[in-house]
Amino acid sequence: MIFDVKIIISLKSGMLDPEACAIQHALSNLGFETEYLNNSKLYSVGIKADDAESARARAEEMCDRLLANPVIQSYSVEVTE
Amino acid sequence: MIFDVKIIISLKSGMLDPEACAIQHALSNLGFETEYLNNSKLYSVGIKADDAESARARAEEMCDRLLANPVIQSYSVEVTE
Repeated sequence: MIFDVKIIISLKSGMLDPEACAIQHALSNLGFETEYLNNSKLYSVGIKADDAESARARAEEMCDRLLANPVIQSYSVEVTE
Repeated sequence: MIFDVKIIISLKSGMLDPEACAIQHALSNLGFETEYLNNSKLYSVGIKADDAESARARAEEMCDRLLANPVIQSYSVEVTE
């Protein structure tokens, strides 16, 4: 069975996000005031697995080994069928 | 009132995504087979507005004017309080 797994990778709280600051600055130059702006990566991955739990475990392993930098980033995994 | 607006920006379907291909290739080198992998940007923006509709309209204008490249990218906006 193929599960659609949404992986969101964002900077850990407290980390400075220069890209988000630059975007927020550019938006305000265009006249858009924003209270805050957070910037994350969203991966939508198709994983063949027997059940949702094993799809989740494999996605978390992908994050640990490649997709997320454990020092500065955190990730969240959402599995849908 | 401050609305939390989630903006997802992804490549239009049919566009080649070299970054996603490289990630999928690296994952398979690590032994993770994936059926597909799509790569998007997720912005979480705090917008002060009178109601959800005006927050949505402003977010869409931000996408049209700065965040998304209309030629190759599409965006979706989700407003929560």
